[in-house]
Amino acid sequence: MATMQVSVLRKAGDIGVEEREVPTPGRGEVLVEIGSVGVCGSDVHYYEHGRIGRFVVDAPLVLGHEAGGVVVEVGPEVSTLQPGQRVSIEPGVPCRRCRQCLSGRYNLCPDVQFFATPPYDGAFCQYLVMPAEFVFAVPDSISDDAAGLLEPLSVGIWASRRAAVAPGTSVLVTGAGPIGIIAAQVARAYGADRVTVTDVNPHRLALAAQLGLEAIDVSATPIAEAGLEPDVLVECSGNPRATWDAFSTVARAGRVVLVGMGGDELRLSLPHLQDREITLTGAFRYANTWPTAIQLAASGRVDRDAVVTGHYDLASAEAALTAARTDPTAVRVIVRPGH
Amino acid sequence: MATMQVSVLRKAGDIGVEEREVPTPGRGEVLVEIGSVGVCGSDVHYYEHGRIGRFVVDAPLVLGHEAGGVVVEVGPEVSTLQPGQRVSIEPGVPCRRCRQCLSGRYNLCPDVQFFATPPYDGAFCQYLVMPAEFVFAVPDSISDDAAGLLEPLSVGIWASRRAAVAPGTSVLVTGAGPIGIIAAQVARAYGADRVTVTDVNPHRLALAAQLGLEAIDVSATPIAEAGLEPDVLVECSGNPRATWDAFSTVARAGRVVLVGMGGDELRLSLPHLQDREITLTGAFRYANTWPTAIQLAASGRVDRDAVVTGHYDLASAEAALTAARTDPTAVRVIVRPGH
Amino acid sequence: MATMQVSVLRKAGDIGVEEREVPTPGRGEVLVEIGSVGVCGSDVHYYEHGRIGRFVVDAPLVLGHEAGGVVVEVGPEVSTLQPGQRVSIEPGVPCRRCRQCLSGRYNLCPDVQFFATPPYDGAFCQYLVMPAEFVFAVPDSISDDAAGLLEPLSVGIWASRRAAVAPGTSVLVTGAGPIGIIAAQVARAYGADRVTVTDVNPHRLALAAQLGLEAIDVSATPIAEAGLEPDVLVECSGNPRATWDAFSTVARAGRVVLVGMGGDELRLSLPHLQDREITLTGAFRYANTWPTAIQLAASGRVDRDAVVTGHYDLASAEAALTAARTDPTAVRVIVRPGH
Amino acid sequence: MATMQVSVLRKAGDIGVEEREVPTPGRGEVLVEIGSVGVCGSDVHYYEHGRIGRFVVDAPLVLGHEAGGVVVEVGPEVSTLQPGQRVSIEPGVPCRRCRQCLSGRYNLCPDVQFFATPPYDGAFCQYLVMPAEFVFAVPDSISDDAAGLLEPLSVGIWASRRAAVAPGTSVLVTGAGPIGIIAAQVARAYGADRVTVTDVNPHRLALAAQLGLEAIDVSATPIAEAGLEPDVLVECSGNPRATWDAFSTVARAGRVVLVGMGGDELRLSLPHLQDREITLTGAFRYANTWPTAIQLAASGRVDRDAVVTGHYDLASAEAALTAARTDPTAVRVIVRPGH
Repeated sequence: MATMQVSVLRKAGDIGVEEREVPTPGRGEVLVEIGSVGVCGSDVHYYEHGRIGRFVVDAPLVLGHEAGGVVVEVGPEVSTLQPGQRVSIEPGVPCRRCRQCLSGRYNLCPDVQFFATPPYDGAFCQYLVMPAEFVFAVPDSISDDAAGLLEPLSVGIWASRRAAVAPGTSVLVTGAGPIGIIAAQVARAYGADRVTVTDVNPHRLALAAQLGLEAIDVSATPIAEAGLEPDVLVECSGNPRATWDAFSTVARAGRVVLVGMGGDELRLSLPHLQDREITLTGAFRYANTWPTAIQLAASGRVDRDAVVTGHYDLASAEAALTAARTDPTAVRVIVRPGH
Repeated sequence: MATMQVSVLRKAGDIGVEEREVPTPGRGEVLVEIGSVGVCGSDVHYYEHGRIGRFVVDAPLVLGHEAGGVVVEVGPEVSTLQPGQRVSIEPGVPCRRCRQCLSGRYNLCPDVQFFATPPYDGAFCQYLVMPAEFVFAVPDSISDDAAGLLEPLSVGIWASRRAAVAPGTSVLVTGAGPIGIIAAQVARAYGADRVTVTDVNPHRLALAAQLGLEAIDVSATPIAEAGLEPDVLVECSGNPRATWDAFSTVARAGRVVLVGMGGDELRLSLPHLQDREITLTGAFRYANTWPTAIQLAASGRVDRDAVVTGHYDLASAEAALTAARTDPTAVRVIVRPGH
Repeated sequence: MATMQVSVLRKAGDIGVEEREVPTPGRGEVLVEIGSVGVCGSDVHYYEHGRIGRFVVDAPLVLGHEAGGVVVEVGPEVSTLQPGQRVSIEPGVPCRRCRQCLSGRYNLCPDVQFFATPPYDGAFCQYLVMPAEFVFAVPDSISDDAAGLLEPLSVGIWASRRAAVAPGTSVLVTGAGPIGIIAAQVARAYGADRVTVTDVNPHRLALAAQLGLEAIDVSATPIAEAGLEPDVLVECSGNPRATWDAFSTVARAGRVVLVGMGGDELRLSLPHLQDREITLTGAFRYANTWPTAIQLAASGRVDRDAVVTGHYDLASAEAALTAARTDPTAVRVIVRPGH
Repeated sequence: MATMQVSVLRKAGDIGVEEREVPTPGRGEVLVEIGSVGVCGSDVHYYEHGRIGRFVVDAPLVLGHEAGGVVVEVGPEVSTLQPGQRVSIEPGVPCRRCRQCLSGRYNLCPDVQFFATPPYDGAFCQYLVMPAEFVFAVPDSISDDAAGLLEPLSVGIWASRRAAVAPGTSVLVTGAGPIGIIAAQVARAYGADRVTVTDVNPHRLALAAQLGLEAIDVSATPIAEAGLEPDVLVECSGNPRATWDAFSTVARAGRVVLVGMGGDELRLSLPHLQDREITLTGAFRYANTWPTAIQLAASGRVDRDAVVTGHYDLASAEAALTAARTDPTAVRVIVRPGH
């Protein structure tokens, strides 16, 4: 029986490699050898605090949910994939029986089994098994890292879809972290006339500018003084003050999508929302985004390789998490289980 | 030159009748003799405080914007109305040149001339002139008071439209004042499967129950314990605590429309909004609602006469405002300029 | 091993009862004892012609897809239903893996297994097994027949949803057969201001009138002369001439849903469609309609018992099909396998 | 009193220059000196046949509705424009009082005064007066010709809006005339993953290919054999056979917008529409497109200069119309009244 290396978070601050059995794909499933896994803020948060809200690490947990790799085995009744295909993984399996799933909103399924969310394991491992319909073949124009980063790209797509970004729309993205940088590029691909990104971190602002985005350092120019009146706000900072200030610039009939996790309480100007009939919503993961993500990535309309700032092997997952947490120049660091 | 009686608010707390010239309808305009004007909370607020937010009564102001009456004269090029027709007035005239107007969102026109909002006068008067397209003939099945109360009915229609109420939807309305009572009936007319109204005022709860609505006294049963998980919340209380509590019961993919004016700050549970992808928006007046309001009223699907709790003549406008403000049994009081 | 009676269509015109094994519910499935099955035009068509378009009866087929009954056994992992519950069956099981299914449009699933559509059997039988999520408990206010007739009610809901029927909408329904009669009542429940039904069959027009619908005999009053300009057309006649004529009355920005099956070719006035920007679409079965159908039926907003014009036992299925085909007074006939 | 040259169509085939008074801008209006006017198929049709459907040239008519120029005088109460500004003209003035106008669908206004449509004159003249809100300043990156060609660009925008083109969408455009070429570029700017254009004219196919569009010669490769299954069809050929064939390739839940004028009758495969729930609509001019058109043009996302194949002065309008009608290499010819 084959075994593999798995990086396991035992409790907050305690992570290490263990040996586990390689799983076997069942009916309709495929076995993927993981090549690249992006380190997300949620991974860092679990590592540091052992929980996110109601999700508590009370048993060993495998982190990582931005994963790409290669199909190595297919189970019975799989016709869409073959061994050897390079793939990207959509990291949640919904129940497909509840009202949300049957309505196409499977991201809101209360029983979704989502990677790296207790009690479900993620992708910091050499192999994993997934239903074939959540594994997507990618062309060679998409790098291994970029295959994994179709996950944050999907977050950006979901935001632009929910905000109805199109030509004729101006978009403000608050927060130039990896999600913000990608969401801004996605908004541009959706045809937004003008996309502006704000942050206070000069490394991130420089990266935004390098990707052709308008970048504003709000420590120097408060957003209220920047002369913007965006049709759409994609909030990616998770910062309550930034949220309040950016919201207060949104145009009449504007749309706001809250992507960043910003604590327990939302505070906004009520007259601004009411008098302008601004529509506000959250973005919780995504649904049906991978085909679009592959198109945006393969055509070069959204550059994800630019946000990659470091690579680590599986045994160095702790170093990867630490870099993501503490290095101000880090944007997206990558764990490569196969190395 | 003909003159008429007009009730004028000179400053907070100072209201009285004056004599003014009867206006003459210009091209495309009609002259309406006002028969009934509902007293809205905003009228009371101007009377009491002399301002609402940035709108300040710094010159004499005529209150009242829920008006019905009879056409007495039509100006040149008016083909849709004739003298003698009973009508309801839509109390705002948008610019029809700006981006909002041309997009059909004329309620968001920054230059709208809205009744009883400084510096524009309202309907506490015997006659007024309006463009014909904002004056709607009503059938005899709609009473004089009900013609005026097509205005709050429009507020309810706007809320149901923005919340996409339809069969298959459960609706929670917070606040059983006149707007809440009407909005709840409108939600039922839009096909909502279940409509629940909350309040703490027993008179209002009794009225809701009498109209066949499910009514909950939240002073006895906190909303969190009522076992509700509404698809739609129509917030009509303007109470921040009620808003927070009711919002926290909304179902996944639910819609929330904030109708009540509740101060400068909106506070909500951010995880509830994000994890459930709830969509939240304001309702600022209405657009293109009168034809629908007439249908709902004429067919008896929404009862507005039931909310009328008193009538006053023009000279008694102060008494009407006081009743609306202080009498716990008052729901909607009416000023009748013609009496 | 238990057996049951099943009515089997062997080929066009050849139908008879056979003995088959009672199936056993697997994981997530329930066994339903069928109480009532409506006879649909498609059942009649298979009986008469042995095919519908590309679907050919080249092996024995069980007809019937409008089914209600009682749960008699539940398989492992079923928590939503219990033996003894009265239920209605949604008669299609989609693949839940394709793009259409994951987007919530499972009615468009190319691999759906739909009752009484070759090669999948239907409900003219005593027992059948279904995944629990397509079996819905119904309250006692819904009769056995009405439980089965939630299926055509779902067709009506789907039409009103796709046409965005709401207060402020006038609706024309062409064809007062069982689908048209139900679709018209559904449109009224969605809040349509005015619902008009057309047909040439006096029995059907009388039934429409009895249900409070405006009914027009187009053999006496051509639709073009009826003075209608509906916002919505729900075409249920399948008659090309009726479709052309009714379409030509639709208002600017109107919506048309084609429900009736009317041959291979659609013909419409192109200038009418273009100049008025009318939006036209088909309705193919339904998705996510059962919860709404139960609400509309249980509250009495849509009467389905009124369309029932005869009952037959399983051995008399041929007589039921013949009545449905040839009796001008028949609206919906019912097969009762349990009798 | 100043006079100007105007090209007047007296009746079919009879066009010539006349002298007329230069009009004076009234309140809210501006006087524009016309620099460039594109020659549209409708201009050619009026010239050739003296009518289009119910619109008959029974009095002298000025053709041309794709116009750009320079503001030379502003009337009272115009604050948005100044003399000297280069502008593009939206060539229709709706009534702004009807239900369609107030709903934002002013393109469907039954009383719109649209250029070059009897009895309203167009832009084959040196000067004309327009309400300021239908005159849009353009940046210098938009050429004179391109300013006029914001009109066909608006047609393309309207098609992409109505078809909800976005990333994740594949688009088929039938007909590579000026409208099709522009509509295809617009679809790409809206983020379509793949845009394919069909025609049989090699000059037009070459132009499409030169602009980076996938081009198919359907005289060589019938569309049914091209392996396409587009999500969106934008029909710009006006050819009934091309419409039928292209429609028959559209994917499940696809959207079809009929832009081309193709006679009195629409014929489509009804089972294809119903089984796939394809949504079909017309595009009648446009509403609220100019700000977006300016953005798409100024940023270079849509190239309109490439479609210009010839320039003519006002006295040569007949030659321009003839070239547009008969020269197979002509795409869009331009009349320049100022030359």
